[in-house]
Amino acid sequence: MIIVLKPGCTDAQLTHICEKLEEMGFRHEVSRGIKRTLVGVIGEEDQLRNAPLKAIPGVEEVMSVLKPFKLASREFHEEPSVIDLGHGVKVGGGYLMMIAGPCAIEGEELLHEIGTKVKAAGANVLRGGAFKPRTSPYSFQGMGEEGLQILRRVGDELQMPVVTEVMDPRQVELVNEYTDIFQIGARNMQNFNLLNEVGQTNRPVLLKRGMSATIQDLLMSAEYILSNGNMKVILCERGIRSFDSSTRNLLDLAAVPNLQGLSHLPVVVDPSHATGRPDLIPPMALASVAAGADGVHIEVHSCPEKATSDGAQALLPEQYAEVAQQMAALAKLLNKTIPAAGSAS
Amino acid sequence: MIIVLKPGCTDAQLTHICEKLEEMGFRHEVSRGIKRTLVGVIGEEDQLRNAPLKAIPGVEEVMSVLKPFKLASREFHEEPSVIDLGHGVKVGGGYLMMIAGPCAIEGEELLHEIGTKVKAAGANVLRGGAFKPRTSPYSFQGMGEEGLQILRRVGDELQMPVVTEVMDPRQVELVNEYTDIFQIGARNMQNFNLLNEVGQTNRPVLLKRGMSATIQDLLMSAEYILSNGNMKVILCERGIRSFDSSTRNLLDLAAVPNLQGLSHLPVVVDPSHATGRPDLIPPMALASVAAGADGVHIEVHSCPEKATSDGAQALLPEQYAEVAQQMAALAKLLNKTIPAAGSAS
Amino acid sequence: MIIVLKPGCTDAQLTHICEKLEEMGFRHEVSRGIKRTLVGVIGEEDQLRNAPLKAIPGVEEVMSVLKPFKLASREFHEEPSVIDLGHGVKVGGGYLMMIAGPCAIEGEELLHEIGTKVKAAGANVLRGGAFKPRTSPYSFQGMGEEGLQILRRVGDELQMPVVTEVMDPRQVELVNEYTDIFQIGARNMQNFNLLNEVGQTNRPVLLKRGMSATIQDLLMSAEYILSNGNMKVILCERGIRSFDSSTRNLLDLAAVPNLQGLSHLPVVVDPSHATGRPDLIPPMALASVAAGADGVHIEVHSCPEKATSDGAQALLPEQYAEVAQQMAALAKLLNKTIPAAGSAS
Amino acid sequence: MIIVLKPGCTDAQLTHICEKLEEMGFRHEVSRGIKRTLVGVIGEEDQLRNAPLKAIPGVEEVMSVLKPFKLASREFHEEPSVIDLGHGVKVGGGYLMMIAGPCAIEGEELLHEIGTKVKAAGANVLRGGAFKPRTSPYSFQGMGEEGLQILRRVGDELQMPVVTEVMDPRQVELVNEYTDIFQIGARNMQNFNLLNEVGQTNRPVLLKRGMSATIQDLLMSAEYILSNGNMKVILCERGIRSFDSSTRNLLDLAAVPNLQGLSHLPVVVDPSHATGRPDLIPPMALASVAAGADGVHIEVHSCPEKATSDGAQALLPEQYAEVAQQMAALAKLLNKTIPAAGSAS
Repeated sequence: MIIVLKPGCTDAQLTHICEKLEEMGFRHEVSRGIKRTLVGVIGEEDQLRNAPLKAIPGVEEVMSVLKPFKLASREFHEEPSVIDLGHGVKVGGGYLMMIAGPCAIEGEELLHEIGTKVKAAGANVLRGGAFKPRTSPYSFQGMGEEGLQILRRVGDELQMPVVTEVMDPRQVELVNEYTDIFQIGARNMQNFNLLNEVGQTNRPVLLKRGMSATIQDLLMSAEYILSNGNMKVILCERGIRSFDSSTRNLLDLAAVPNLQGLSHLPVVVDPSHATGRPDLIPPMALASVAAGADGVHIEVHSCPEKATSDGAQALLPEQYAEVAQQMAALAKLLNKTIPAAGSAS
Repeated sequence: MIIVLKPGCTDAQLTHICEKLEEMGFRHEVSRGIKRTLVGVIGEEDQLRNAPLKAIPGVEEVMSVLKPFKLASREFHEEPSVIDLGHGVKVGGGYLMMIAGPCAIEGEELLHEIGTKVKAAGANVLRGGAFKPRTSPYSFQGMGEEGLQILRRVGDELQMPVVTEVMDPRQVELVNEYTDIFQIGARNMQNFNLLNEVGQTNRPVLLKRGMSATIQDLLMSAEYILSNGNMKVILCERGIRSFDSSTRNLLDLAAVPNLQGLSHLPVVVDPSHATGRPDLIPPMALASVAAGADGVHIEVHSCPEKATSDGAQALLPEQYAEVAQQMAALAKLLNKTIPAAGSAS
Repeated sequence: MIIVLKPGCTDAQLTHICEKLEEMGFRHEVSRGIKRTLVGVIGEEDQLRNAPLKAIPGVEEVMSVLKPFKLASREFHEEPSVIDLGHGVKVGGGYLMMIAGPCAIEGEELLHEIGTKVKAAGANVLRGGAFKPRTSPYSFQGMGEEGLQILRRVGDELQMPVVTEVMDPRQVELVNEYTDIFQIGARNMQNFNLLNEVGQTNRPVLLKRGMSATIQDLLMSAEYILSNGNMKVILCERGIRSFDSSTRNLLDLAAVPNLQGLSHLPVVVDPSHATGRPDLIPPMALASVAAGADGVHIEVHSCPEKATSDGAQALLPEQYAEVAQQMAALAKLLNKTIPAAGSAS
Repeated sequence: MIIVLKPGCTDAQLTHICEKLEEMGFRHEVSRGIKRTLVGVIGEEDQLRNAPLKAIPGVEEVMSVLKPFKLASREFHEEPSVIDLGHGVKVGGGYLMMIAGPCAIEGEELLHEIGTKVKAAGANVLRGGAFKPRTSPYSFQGMGEEGLQILRRVGDELQMPVVTEVMDPRQVELVNEYTDIFQIGARNMQNFNLLNEVGQTNRPVLLKRGMSATIQDLLMSAEYILSNGNMKVILCERGIRSFDSSTRNLLDLAAVPNLQGLSHLPVVVDPSHATGRPDLIPPMALASVAAGADGVHIEVHSCPEKATSDGAQALLPEQYAEVAQQMAALAKLLNKTIPAAGSAS
């Protein structure tokens, strides 16, 4: 931690700053430059970070040298984490997770039909929402527990691990009975009590980046889960807010290698929510694999014009099959493995 | 709702679109322009909004004519809402709410000292956090119920209504026992289950705008609370994410008249979180009043360098007194009233 | 300047870094912390800034301690600059500039009519565009030199200083013959050759903030003009890009005190381009004065539905008169002076 | 064009609107919905767009049905444009442009060395800046004409087409003598006079997206060049402004298929300026090719720590060779061709 003093900082102020630091148990070194005096502070940055040093008179700026996340960092865990998702599927360290399925669960027959098709196309994780966070209170809010039961049955029949969103700490226990992977949606990325709650389970968590979350914010939210003891966190880039309205959000694909450089956690990409446009999903899915993503999440619906949620952004099963084949070819070129679901237990 | 057809949309596709609309019970009118054909759809926009019209082949774009919020709109309630906060304080329709207090509750004596000073300076609502949403799991998370008890006692002693944040649907019942006003923080603006929960109480809710929420998103979140029967929603602009890091967030002051034009709900401004800089808070507080805000929310701490949370952005009580006096002069010029707390019951 | 070393930085790399610094003539101090080693570099930051220190192996980050602008800074010139605009009008240091007029000059009679009305309402600078930067090549591009002649004649008749945009270094000489103040538009804020050109005149320059310019970017662009010898720069906040499309741009009003804290240059606000909405212009104009702005720039047109450019965002002369009166009352409350144009020569 | 009327729009206002439209020569159709009345306007949208319809009393909103760009659109030119760059290199329609070279030209020997290496690695266009737009007036501004001469000589010797930036309309004639391709930098994307000037030459133009330019803004700037008669425009995505400071800009890779869907012009990507980080450039270069880009632009320097400009973001020649080989493998998989420079004249 480095403290930059204001140009006119008095000796009395400097003495006060040094006393404060000593009081808190930190070593410090004063360094006088041509235009500014600096105080280097040596000690645990976490403790320093919580101290309101900037409020002390004479201080112009406080600059952090270390990142605030620890368990999520490469310094804590050098090698990429590989997370077991069940049914023979793994993610991270060269294994790709291919998530596909409808936005919302709308019925067993339909989910089974979509699931069968996406599995045949190469998907290895089935998705479907039972609790839907909708911008409007007047929109369809999901089938709830009935949806969870359908998802579980279809996953078992198809021998695919399933992922579904949990929106409320009170739902964690219930959802935990049915799902293989929790999804935390973008709007809940900083719902810290929910993060604590899934952190106390032993289940993989797909943590979506919030619409205005920085790379560091996302890793700090992962840190909430990790610090509760659950090390199975999968990060998901799904687009952030921007000034251009021609796509739903702005896909930040550089977040993939950026996160992978800072953290050992797997990083998957959701081009469906990021772009909201079926014409852009296939090229962005390929680009995700090329960028080194550990997985791709795509919404698929066999009749988008009848979907209860986000139909306009779903691919048809045959469109998914095409892009999945291209992703497989690309994965092969890059020496990545796409585990087949159901190939092991 | 207007459907714009793609340039090459076939007659069969157009017929299919019209059949879909009839099936859903909507009237429609086809209008052929020079380069594009349009279909005007007449019916309840809410139902239309939920129909995935964009997924139908041949559709280029779907344009909404109406806003999706209703209970929050001026069309539903023409006059500005005036909300009673207790202890003689009201907000909206010419009454200003002057919220002041520390970021986090740290002890009874300190809160009492700060509360006494800000009340003397003209504040009419006391704030203080007992549950703190912190980016890092390693930061101070608040005093919890003990903090709520302190806040209640100090509020009663000073005869000021109090406001405190609720972060979790499971805390609503508890917080409801102690507070006069719920605060929903920016990170929870789209925590829909939490909105539903406070919507089922009868207590005023200070709803803070999310960091990447549009004006419409904020009103849709208010709509969640309103549609549960609680009409006492106070909107709060507190800065949004931007590319300039010289302030903590970017204060969108035009949101004040923008929201007031669309909605009858009071709109207050929080320049403390918006700027994160004590030097910018006073001018932004004055600008908020000049922009027509129904209240101003300012963090005040008598010893910022000892604060457990956000000390660097707090004003000293004497700084608050100075800006509060200027706000009062400005309010008078604009024919606004600042109710004194404790003047009535 | 502080160099943060990578965790695994070798002694050979550190030696190389230190040799590089000595070669460039800088003193340095090595400081070993618990997790990171730092190198403090003492010398002229400008020279350091241009050295690609981050490209040296072993370097994790390079942190600047000083701001890169000099002539624009408060450290260079402590007191607020007061700039003389002619016809008795000044801006800065307590004097407010009230700019009003149509977006584009469309004819002498019309400009004279608008100018007469806004002067009567209290405006002290007349604006009008002769060269118009338009997003589309198919839109009206301005009247050119004929427009300049009209502006000059009307300004002289009404005894008001005039301001008009210059878009091209080749136009500077021509525009200089007619205008009292150059305007550099938002799209040209980083047109460095144009900045150099107006920097070589002796005329005040109204420099508008670019749509994605940080506070520092704006001051660096001012620095281009100042470093050419022209110290008469007036900064203008006119809204930046954001994700909310309900206003044309996002007015960053905190930029006013933020810039005034860093720089001695006057700062004016343009709520017309910032919001693009006549209903939001008056409250934002008042808020600008309350925030401490040194002037307000408002587009006024006597028949907006016939305007050739940006008619939808213009105020009517009677609307301007109303808000100008309120701004005057507010200025009085804040002890600011609005010089009357034509009161002196 | 569709005009949405305000809820309380009077019959007199509606009549006035219809008269205005007739006066301007447009047909119109009035459509009364449940909550809003619409007026559909039939006629040339360009003329409508320039009419300030929103300023007419009673109008709530004006919605465009058509895009404002024409010559740049797929509707004007259905097939992808293929542009000849000289020395046997083409871009667009399956041909990839591989641009490499230093940020700034610093000397003939160095440029020759870098050029030789990048050509051997597969680059087919050599870049180098002679006029540098720098944020600070105190930074190196480029070698000027001497740099252009060096670039021309090295390009001729290596039989590679060359690209260099032009910043000022007054430089167009000079730069035209030396370069094969003009580059318009991000800061000048809306320097409309400069666009007009290069539009009057017959030389390919690499048009970089501005930092806050929407997809449509970029196409409108291309339209300036095209409407002057120069149809050889190559669009370049190079990152936009965002709230995350961990990369220099935010690479919007979805812009590639988004632009290609709307326009026939080739689209290349510059991951160097987009990320500003050597570790992120290779994955983003691969992702660009996978996303369907028509070319990739990468800065390469043989001694980044001595570069006069942007050294910290340059790849070493050996790093470039590695990523170029991977891009070639990927291009082959996707059936794209990378023309070798010098293979034809």
